[in-house]
Amino acid sequence: MTPHSNADSAEAAFYRAFELCDLQAMTRVWDDSPQSTCIHPGGPLLQGAEAVLQSWGEIFGQAKAPQVQYRLLQRLENDGLAIHTVEEAIRPGDGDAEPTLLIATNIYRQTDTGGWLMIAHHACLPMMGQRQARGRSTHSVH
Amino acid sequence: MTPHSNADSAEAAFYRAFELCDLQAMTRVWDDSPQSTCIHPGGPLLQGAEAVLQSWGEIFGQAKAPQVQYRLLQRLENDGLAIHTVEEAIRPGDGDAEPTLLIATNIYRQTDTGGWLMIAHHACLPMMGQRQARGRSTHSVH
Repeated sequence: MTPHSNADSAEAAFYRAFELCDLQAMTRVWDDSPQSTCIHPGGPLLQGAEAVLQSWGEIFGQAKAPQVQYRLLQRLENDGLAIHTVEEAIRPGDGDAEPTLLIATNIYRQTDTGGWLMIAHHACLPMMGQRQARGRSTHSVH
Repeated sequence: MTPHSNADSAEAAFYRAFELCDLQAMTRVWDDSPQSTCIHPGGPLLQGAEAVLQSWGEIFGQAKAPQVQYRLLQRLENDGLAIHTVEEAIRPGDGDAEPTLLIATNIYRQTDTGGWLMIAHHACLPMMGQRQARGRSTHSVH
């Protein structure tokens, strides 16, 4: 395991692995735990490191390496857990289309060895167009 | 503040307030903190209790009280923070349509007084049809 000294370092490694479609690097970012969870946009909850990493393997197998930018919007921390809300801008590797914007909740846990690893990545479907600028959802209920 | 003795109790109060469109009850569930965040499906990140509760007020003002069911899929806890991954089934109050399924990440924090309050609610757009049964996202990248 790469010993990330804090959640920010683990997060940088996560997005680097994503951008490089590097499953080995992605594996090193995740806590090898049945508690690890991942939700890809519009997808179901994947539970356990094995299912999570299998999904990343499938994604990496299909995709040309995308361009991934991320911006930390908010952090919430206490001893041993760090919750980051992140805006992602993902541009597919096979085109020069506008990047897709997503919001993700990334959660990191300090392990017994003191290093930080990802324990959850929950990504939401794109914000539509300039909805963000209007500052509200168009959904009448929830 | 209602002193919820654990995150499960705060979560039950959150969904009850949602179902009843009761803004006062919803206000009592949330930590009155600038760190509180909410993402409605497809919407932007709302930061701070004031913005969060304003959004719920707008939702409640537009909607007939919906039927809301929820099911805890996963929990992750340590001292002072509890992270729940929840499946929501929301049926609008003005029809008998099939419920919309969503996945939400709900985060609760133990306050100085010992009670638990909601600090984040991040809800994702619906899972499409039976995508859940197929067990993977249809997105080729992310």
